[in-house]
Amino acid sequence: MNKVARIKEFTGPKGISLVEEEIPSPKAGEVLVKMKAAGLNRVENMISYGQFPFLPELPGKIGFEGAGIIERLGDNIEDFQIGDEVSITPNMAFNAYGVIANYAVVPGKALIKKPSSLSWIEAAALWMGYGTAYAGIVNAGGLKQGANQTVVISAASSSVGLPAIQIAKAHGAKVIATSRTLAKEAALKDVGADFVVATNDEQWTERVLEATSGKGFDIAFDPITGPFTSQLAEVAGFGATIVSYGTMSKSDTALPLFPMLFKALKLTGIDSGHHLLGNPAALDIAKDHIVRNLENSTYHLKIDSTFSLEQVVEAYQRMESGQQIGKIVIEIA
Amino acid sequence: MNKVARIKEFTGPKGISLVEEEIPSPKAGEVLVKMKAAGLNRVENMISYGQFPFLPELPGKIGFEGAGIIERLGDNIEDFQIGDEVSITPNMAFNAYGVIANYAVVPGKALIKKPSSLSWIEAAALWMGYGTAYAGIVNAGGLKQGANQTVVISAASSSVGLPAIQIAKAHGAKVIATSRTLAKEAALKDVGADFVVATNDEQWTERVLEATSGKGFDIAFDPITGPFTSQLAEVAGFGATIVSYGTMSKSDTALPLFPMLFKALKLTGIDSGHHLLGNPAALDIAKDHIVRNLENSTYHLKIDSTFSLEQVVEAYQRMESGQQIGKIVIEIA
Repeated sequence: MNKVARIKEFTGPKGISLVEEEIPSPKAGEVLVKMKAAGLNRVENMISYGQFPFLPELPGKIGFEGAGIIERLGDNIEDFQIGDEVSITPNMAFNAYGVIANYAVVPGKALIKKPSSLSWIEAAALWMGYGTAYAGIVNAGGLKQGANQTVVISAASSSVGLPAIQIAKAHGAKVIATSRTLAKEAALKDVGADFVVATNDEQWTERVLEATSGKGFDIAFDPITGPFTSQLAEVAGFGATIVSYGTMSKSDTALPLFPMLFKALKLTGIDSGHHLLGNPAALDIAKDHIVRNLENSTYHLKIDSTFSLEQVVEAYQRMESGQQIGKIVIEIA
Repeated sequence: MNKVARIKEFTGPKGISLVEEEIPSPKAGEVLVKMKAAGLNRVENMISYGQFPFLPELPGKIGFEGAGIIERLGDNIEDFQIGDEVSITPNMAFNAYGVIANYAVVPGKALIKKPSSLSWIEAAALWMGYGTAYAGIVNAGGLKQGANQTVVISAASSSVGLPAIQIAKAHGAKVIATSRTLAKEAALKDVGADFVVATNDEQWTERVLEATSGKGFDIAFDPITGPFTSQLAEVAGFGATIVSYGTMSKSDTALPLFPMLFKALKLTGIDSGHHLLGNPAALDIAKDHIVRNLENSTYHLKIDSTFSLEQVVEAYQRMESGQQIGKIVIEIA
């Protein structure tokens, strides 16, 4: 039998429960994976509340990132064999799949072979965070090696923010990490942040200006949006890029038109499921960079906490708490 | 004596009148130009209503683009001589200068030597339109020669829109021009537009999809903003860029966050006064391109109408009417 996490109603983590089901069969283009671990992401919290443009029919599966061993192949799978150890990336329809289960069917296009240097937890929890961070600050934001750029990373203690700090530092950038309070300051500096700015300080934008000698930042990488985007735009440097990758603020977001006109500000969005993980050429470059830097210990995947499959509700409640620093992982026996 | 157009009150064109004054003296870094012609731009209409972030003290001068002959040099002017024929570009503080006059003091950085192939009217009316269009669709928008891009040019009959059509066509792009109605359709097609879409048609975005076989555009170049930006975002293709260069819609502009996230949409702003005309390296490239294509008749500066200095109010009323197709020029005797 197969225990599967299912959203029974859109009431957040407590609407999720484990259901015993038959082990499913992969269709053409899909594989069945015996799961070893799954990495949690904030988008699942949004989906668990029914706050996302694409929602599953209830009871819907959940979880879009993990690692395991291929158990069965559907038709038209050419690059993988039964027994392969794989990462599952979120390159899948969020309203059709879900990997928090003993066995999960996933599309073949979501698979990346697991380098033997990575643990199951690393392989399960790497790609959404490091992939989104790499696609966001390098591909979309224009981070360049040794270009002396200043990068603002907001909500920096998240599973995307922490990799973003490491990637920015590895490129020689100055990093300003933001967090609601200074409670996580030491942890953020430990990962590499040069400055930590608390956004519950009404003068936080002044702190960003101070940290940039009045010039403003070059790249901001932000999952908050809403009014936060306009505040960022105020302290953007000339020609800066703001890369948005989420909607944590539930408020409307205004286009900061005058800073855009007078500072040639660029705003762009990134959704790594589509933009990196679904783009083989870009993914190959990012993958090589990320695995190389994990292997040589430049990057460290920060794990906040691990839970068992039976603790799936607690795992998502931990994410909702905002207390975590790094990745929340479900280990699957 | 010197007749100078001055804004006496921020009531639009009728608040402007001619004042007789002493001929002014250039300070260090400035020159005095005996004006031959001045090109009008929409930003002056906004300023005449007091609707701009940087306003002159009343009675303020007006007009930021023109051509004439250098009459006197201030200190520290090295690249120009008395008697040089020059274009004056809008690379100046809009709250400190104004060229609609017999004699105008302008900053040396605003000057471009007038190629002898250009008439005074061309030299006076070229750079804001062609410069903004070039900076917007090539530098900011990513227009490339022969890349089969589709470019939406909104408010296309303006003195920036018409050059943008020509520049896009010369790069091999497909051009969708928008205008409030179809009244200017023939004129826009004559300049090179492949499709003309009337934005007073509530289904106008459907017309854009039809013209792109459902794929959406690659670049939009838009002075309207407000709700128009979100409508554009709906029919943007994957990875498209929307370049904003104005605020014709007085309404707030929302950031189109979900299209930005799911289509990797980029939004950026351009103000050619700062971004092209104030950037010597970029300006040299644009200048060569524009002059070469005017000389070989690929580009044609479209003049809507000419007025005398005494008709300055009528000239700005013509701009406000929205009836013009191309550039409104004041010829100065």
